[in-house]
Amino acid sequence: MTEKDLLKQGERIDDLHRNNYKIVQNPNHFCFGMDAVLLSGFAHVESEEQVLDLGTGTGIIPILLEAKSNGARFTGIEIQKESVDMARRSICLNGLENKIKIVEGDIKECLNIFAPSSFDVVTSNPPYIKNGKGLTNENEKVAIARHEILCSLEDVVRAAGKTVKVFGRFYMIHRPQRLLDSMELFRKYDLEPKRIRFVFPFIDKPPNMVMIEGVRQGKPQLTIEPPLIVYQKPGIYTDEIYDIYGIKKE
Amino acid sequence: MTEKDLLKQGERIDDLHRNNYKIVQNPNHFCFGMDAVLLSGFAHVESEEQVLDLGTGTGIIPILLEAKSNGARFTGIEIQKESVDMARRSICLNGLENKIKIVEGDIKECLNIFAPSSFDVVTSNPPYIKNGKGLTNENEKVAIARHEILCSLEDVVRAAGKTVKVFGRFYMIHRPQRLLDSMELFRKYDLEPKRIRFVFPFIDKPPNMVMIEGVRQGKPQLTIEPPLIVYQKPGIYTDEIYDIYGIKKE
Repeated sequence: MTEKDLLKQGERIDDLHRNNYKIVQNPNHFCFGMDAVLLSGFAHVESEEQVLDLGTGTGIIPILLEAKSNGARFTGIEIQKESVDMARRSICLNGLENKIKIVEGDIKECLNIFAPSSFDVVTSNPPYIKNGKGLTNENEKVAIARHEILCSLEDVVRAAGKTVKVFGRFYMIHRPQRLLDSMELFRKYDLEPKRIRFVFPFIDKPPNMVMIEGVRQGKPQLTIEPPLIVYQKPGIYTDEIYDIYGIKKE
Repeated sequence: MTEKDLLKQGERIDDLHRNNYKIVQNPNHFCFGMDAVLLSGFAHVESEEQVLDLGTGTGIIPILLEAKSNGARFTGIEIQKESVDMARRSICLNGLENKIKIVEGDIKECLNIFAPSSFDVVTSNPPYIKNGKGLTNENEKVAIARHEILCSLEDVVRAAGKTVKVFGRFYMIHRPQRLLDSMELFRKYDLEPKRIRFVFPFIDKPPNMVMIEGVRQGKPQLTIEPPLIVYQKPGIYTDEIYDIYGIKKE
């Protein structure tokens, strides 16, 4: 089967700059953004670890983490049927059927799907926008990925807190405006915030994303990391961003 | 009386680069650090506002805020007699007797000293180090300024929450490691965190200070500000730091 045979109408294949991996996406639905890539750079996955990605979309985070780490097995859970389907075809395309599994399901039903405390690492790039706030995208599939329509921030953190092992790590990326809510929810579900890194589009602008590492039953000891600056000037990424993307500078 | 007549043994006079103001300090006790200067740049004081500084030491924050703003009146409370005495002599030296008042007293007794909800703005650069942690300076005066010996972080935040008016602002600088504790205490005492700015010594290093603005009974809406970078290279401050210090670059 050629790459083209794999595609349904409106879909395309994008290069991931890692291990020659590729991903199937549909620009009319939702394409992965920089946030997923940055989270894959922030998360640590050790040899032989089991990883779960909550709301995996087209599977971008498990695919990138598989490329970057020696983790044993990666599982993504996703509620949107079309995304699950694309994710599974990307996994075939990359020959990762033995490493990555995509489960169609609802994060809120996580404990009926997975054994509690069974993952070393849990990741999530959840919808950022509180339902009822901001403009809801008319395209329902995009709206579900961006707005807290089918799951709230609390649903995501609860699912992470229950599925990750004791002393396991949960990595999440979100908007800085939700930092305090996130911190409170992490502590509520026994995930102690240990590392925080803010992402600043430019050095003189406020951050537009924040990445948080929580450790289940971790001892309180928070480290704020150096700023992650995206652009050194308009249109030109910083070296660190090129590095996270795996793109070699000319 | 000349400047020299004002000084007691071991003391010196330092230039503050603002309105020709000067400050009396004793290097054997505790000299103000960059944190006090940065907090004076982070705090907003509007015309005619009443300002209280908790644990004012030699009065550096009220003196700098008086220079930078049109606030009506500035009050500092300080428990160490020698610091109170130095602060009062600095106020005379700068002719600020009608603008700044230093009260000798304990932050924990704030509500017996000041009327509740009576200040528009409260500031504090409190001791950073938890008592019993780290090396306690053998010099008791330095230890009290640096360690939570005579007051805890909670004492400071409680005092701020009680003395600031409804919708008034509290500005604090602390270590990033205490960010979560600070946030929880702010909310406990009804001070909603609204602005946070991290101070990074270098662009590629973790922050070593964080400044927080809380608004009493404020609506939850947190802004993280652009990174404040201290050094552009070893020994050379960034332009923003020179600007906050009021030092003109050659």
